[in-house]
Amino acid sequence: MIIGVIGGSSCSKEVWKIAYNLGREIAKRKAILVCGGMGGVMEASCKGAKSQGGLTIGILPGKDKKEGNRYIDIPIVTAMSHARNAIIVRTADILIAIAGKYGTLSEIGLALACGKKVIGIGTWDIAGVEQAESIEEAMYLIERTKNEGE
Amino acid sequence: MIIGVIGGSSCSKEVWKIAYNLGREIAKRKAILVCGGMGGVMEASCKGAKSQGGLTIGILPGKDKKEGNRYIDIPIVTAMSHARNAIIVRTADILIAIAGKYGTLSEIGLALACGKKVIGIGTWDIAGVEQAESIEEAMYLIERTKNEGE
Amino acid sequence: MIIGVIGGSSCSKEVWKIAYNLGREIAKRKAILVCGGMGGVMEASCKGAKSQGGLTIGILPGKDKKEGNRYIDIPIVTAMSHARNAIIVRTADILIAIAGKYGTLSEIGLALACGKKVIGIGTWDIAGVEQAESIEEAMYLIERTKNEGE
Amino acid sequence: MIIGVIGGSSCSKEVWKIAYNLGREIAKRKAILVCGGMGGVMEASCKGAKSQGGLTIGILPGKDKKEGNRYIDIPIVTAMSHARNAIIVRTADILIAIAGKYGTLSEIGLALACGKKVIGIGTWDIAGVEQAESIEEAMYLIERTKNEGE
Repeated sequence: MIIGVIGGSSCSKEVWKIAYNLGREIAKRKAILVCGGMGGVMEASCKGAKSQGGLTIGILPGKDKKEGNRYIDIPIVTAMSHARNAIIVRTADILIAIAGKYGTLSEIGLALACGKKVIGIGTWDIAGVEQAESIEEAMYLIERTKNEGE
Repeated sequence: MIIGVIGGSSCSKEVWKIAYNLGREIAKRKAILVCGGMGGVMEASCKGAKSQGGLTIGILPGKDKKEGNRYIDIPIVTAMSHARNAIIVRTADILIAIAGKYGTLSEIGLALACGKKVIGIGTWDIAGVEQAESIEEAMYLIERTKNEGE
Repeated sequence: MIIGVIGGSSCSKEVWKIAYNLGREIAKRKAILVCGGMGGVMEASCKGAKSQGGLTIGILPGKDKKEGNRYIDIPIVTAMSHARNAIIVRTADILIAIAGKYGTLSEIGLALACGKKVIGIGTWDIAGVEQAESIEEAMYLIERTKNEGE
Repeated sequence: MIIGVIGGSSCSKEVWKIAYNLGREIAKRKAILVCGGMGGVMEASCKGAKSQGGLTIGILPGKDKKEGNRYIDIPIVTAMSHARNAIIVRTADILIAIAGKYGTLSEIGLALACGKKVIGIGTWDIAGVEQAESIEEAMYLIERTKNEGE
């Protein structure tokens, strides 16, 4: 299972910690983490995943794989700026949005347009996003989807 | 000036009429209309623009230019599905969102992430979108931006 | 009919003149010219087309429409670097390659992979490209294709 | 190190065997294999890599990860058709082209345009491609590049 983590390239310490812990939980469940590969929520979740030996993919917006955060195992270099958001969304089986600004909003829109489930933690209040109060609830919602789907 | 019109590929009669009249106003002001090139709001606005001799660009998601609506002058064939939304947004100097679902939401997010002004008519209630009550107000907001910007 | 002109973003004076005259012929036949929107062969062919009142589209690789050459009527801003080559190829009904380096080679490959006819003037010697000795011959080959196809 | 393998989605038995053995050699050297994720040379090289416990990435052209061959560990779903060729090329540190048709030609062009080294085995005769007579020679050329580069 590939889980997408979307959120801002900069974030508060509180959001950073949520993203880090979410990355840990994803890796503990042997799921692969895909994200935009940059800083903030992306870096935090990758760092968390690596702390548990997980595998991380960064779909990078620029031309240089070195721009990815240091916790990316597989840097996918798109040189497509925001258009790479569509690739993150399609590559993920399910997505978790943590906080985030307009880039995250675009990813939520793309994910729902593609029929992907989006779980939100403190993110945009968009109809169709399943809001979770905690990482535990988010992981529960993912497990439920997994059991339903396959 | 290139004005982007974003909205659903299917829509109600009421929304269709708004999009049609908006297209007319865009063409009257000698602006170029860019959109996703498909049906619904896209087709209605292009038809309106053509009724006034305007020029219309459709950034198509598929592989065949014939899939574009019949009021498109310039079909740009991307074969990139939703990733083409980023091209609509970057090509437009300013965007008007009419109603719309998740695809439109993604375009609003992308536009605001790129620093483009988005005017909304009966669309998603997103912080940063300037909501207009009427086509007249939308056109006024565009004129004001144009005068500020250039 | 939309004719794609592909070639280097810098070129010799001789190639520049060929591209300029080709742009003139395209516009005289009321065809639309699509290209990558930058300098060299792209700029020369757009300048030629504009000298005859033609319409020019530039599928730009970067984020800013100002980077396009000054003879572009419709700047399409992709922010996708070389991936925009696929859009040029799909948007054109037929392509003419003039000289060119590796970017042009990629466009020839994409065009032939998409089943588009490619006419070459002093370009890569690739099986499948119809080589023309002159602009007249290139325009003749286009006319013939047009008559066959539609 | 990420090594790109490019070649046709269908191929002869002889080419299939070369691709398979190449995949084996890539995995033995602990390099990651990236390719377009489909059949032919892509499938053969992934199968070879998996036979040695390697890691394989498929940059898929369509919307469904199930379209990738069964030896792909990480399916990246682009829904971008041939435009995904640019992502394969940018993601790879170095590329090996085996035989191939026009899609492969476009990838060779993109790779050389991006300044990436391309090693060829029975592929297009393009200036700039380093032709190898055997898998051993191809792997030697890769090793040499690696030692030069880092």
